[in-house]
Amino acid sequence: MGRVTHRTPAHHVDLSDPAAPRIASRPDTVAVEEPLEIRVGGVSLAVTMRTPGDDFDLAIGFLLTEGLIGAAEDVRSLMHCQDEGEDGLPTYNVVDVTLAPGVTPPAANAARQSYITSSCGICGKASIEAITTKSRYAVARDRAPVDPRVLAAMPTTLRAHQKVFDRTGGLHAAGLFTAEGELLVLREDVGRHNAVDKVIGWAAREDRLPLTGHVLCVSGRASFELTQKALMAGIPTLAAVSAPSSLAVDLATEAGMTLVGFVRDPKLTVYSGPDRLGIRP
Amino acid sequence: MGRVTHRTPAHHVDLSDPAAPRIASRPDTVAVEEPLEIRVGGVSLAVTMRTPGDDFDLAIGFLLTEGLIGAAEDVRSLMHCQDEGEDGLPTYNVVDVTLAPGVTPPAANAARQSYITSSCGICGKASIEAITTKSRYAVARDRAPVDPRVLAAMPTTLRAHQKVFDRTGGLHAAGLFTAEGELLVLREDVGRHNAVDKVIGWAAREDRLPLTGHVLCVSGRASFELTQKALMAGIPTLAAVSAPSSLAVDLATEAGMTLVGFVRDPKLTVYSGPDRLGIRP
Repeated sequence: MGRVTHRTPAHHVDLSDPAAPRIASRPDTVAVEEPLEIRVGGVSLAVTMRTPGDDFDLAIGFLLTEGLIGAAEDVRSLMHCQDEGEDGLPTYNVVDVTLAPGVTPPAANAARQSYITSSCGICGKASIEAITTKSRYAVARDRAPVDPRVLAAMPTTLRAHQKVFDRTGGLHAAGLFTAEGELLVLREDVGRHNAVDKVIGWAAREDRLPLTGHVLCVSGRASFELTQKALMAGIPTLAAVSAPSSLAVDLATEAGMTLVGFVRDPKLTVYSGPDRLGIRP
Repeated sequence: MGRVTHRTPAHHVDLSDPAAPRIASRPDTVAVEEPLEIRVGGVSLAVTMRTPGDDFDLAIGFLLTEGLIGAAEDVRSLMHCQDEGEDGLPTYNVVDVTLAPGVTPPAANAARQSYITSSCGICGKASIEAITTKSRYAVARDRAPVDPRVLAAMPTTLRAHQKVFDRTGGLHAAGLFTAEGELLVLREDVGRHNAVDKVIGWAAREDRLPLTGHVLCVSGRASFELTQKALMAGIPTLAAVSAPSSLAVDLATEAGMTLVGFVRDPKLTVYSGPDRLGIRP
């Protein structure tokens, strides 16, 4: 399995003294980024730049959140393709997914293109409809409450467990929490969508879907893509440390999700679904 | 043209007093995220989630940095498809590119798949080779120096011009600077790759490629993708406010680019090409 961090030569420059810059040349630890190709039945479906590790979870999570499979049972087996790098060592950068008997393989260009419409029109509304139609879980009906104080504390817990960020300063994190604030799983990745796919793929393989009453907490911003992924896993609450986008707010509102941004204890901003937090404007 | 920001209902919660949370319900400004479909000769090539505005620059920049066209002259015309949303108003979410006579249109699945290899093997090395082979500019031969003090000041200039970030806290920024520290163009977008494509598309349409001696400064991390885009435009120096990934460092080193991370005046870390900054370890 690939490494998560890598030591690379670096020159640390301090220009505090205008007359004499100080230069310390010593290795720095950076987050590893490597391509992962996801194949279904030997056919290439997608390539994502990711941090190696939990690749099977990533593949399952990706297929699920893109609506290309409905459940972990739709997959019969996963294997790392025996590809080799220039050094003759395995790269573990290709995962081949074998579907269960009777499951229809996705079209080769299905991934990432799922919100293209065939007409001339494409807009946020169409993207939202595509997702809400595709999701098999109705999070709007999930009324389990979350205490806003518990939610406000989640980024601190997330940050405390970001072991690789500590060393590199260069990774996004996603964590799955219970409504009581227990961190079930945390994944770090150079791509925020990959971190979320790894979390959801883990939950799917643990047979925990739909994630009723759970909270997905992400270290950065809440985009349409991350909101979509949460929805596809039946997660009713998405909490982001930074800002949401307009389309994330629209999708969350339409789907009856709770979307919370700028979660910075003791403050947070609720953009949709305040009821779940017991907030009545 | 679409809007860049959007006002949305929000509940601002302050939990400082455990006994009585304070809730202020008032609209918040969020960054607009909408899909943009890029078509070439009427054929759909890619959909990207972007902040509306500068869509022609985005389309040109995307085609250029993906190696699907070689120069702005390869494009004869750009138009917004006359698609309509549910409200009957144009959405401006489809750009159709007409290539100049004699220019071969890219294969429908060419975009984003350009580093898939046909063999079982895929690795960072192959990705780097694909890019360095594809780029028409040899930045390694561009020896124009950059004063590290000028470089250290760029993020402050960038931040001072991030007008939309001020209102939303939710946008990435990319700025193109001269070696003397003059900001030529700045673009903000919910997607960092879009911000860079808009900058490079602008430069291409201004007939400024290759961007010899220039610096691309980005508000976040330096990924393989952003490094690739800089390289495809002949930009010799990439400066990031946050961390680089392993593959960004590898690509920059291989291509003879200068890659600088954690640019936080008066400090910065040089990961490749220290010569251009006059740094001799």
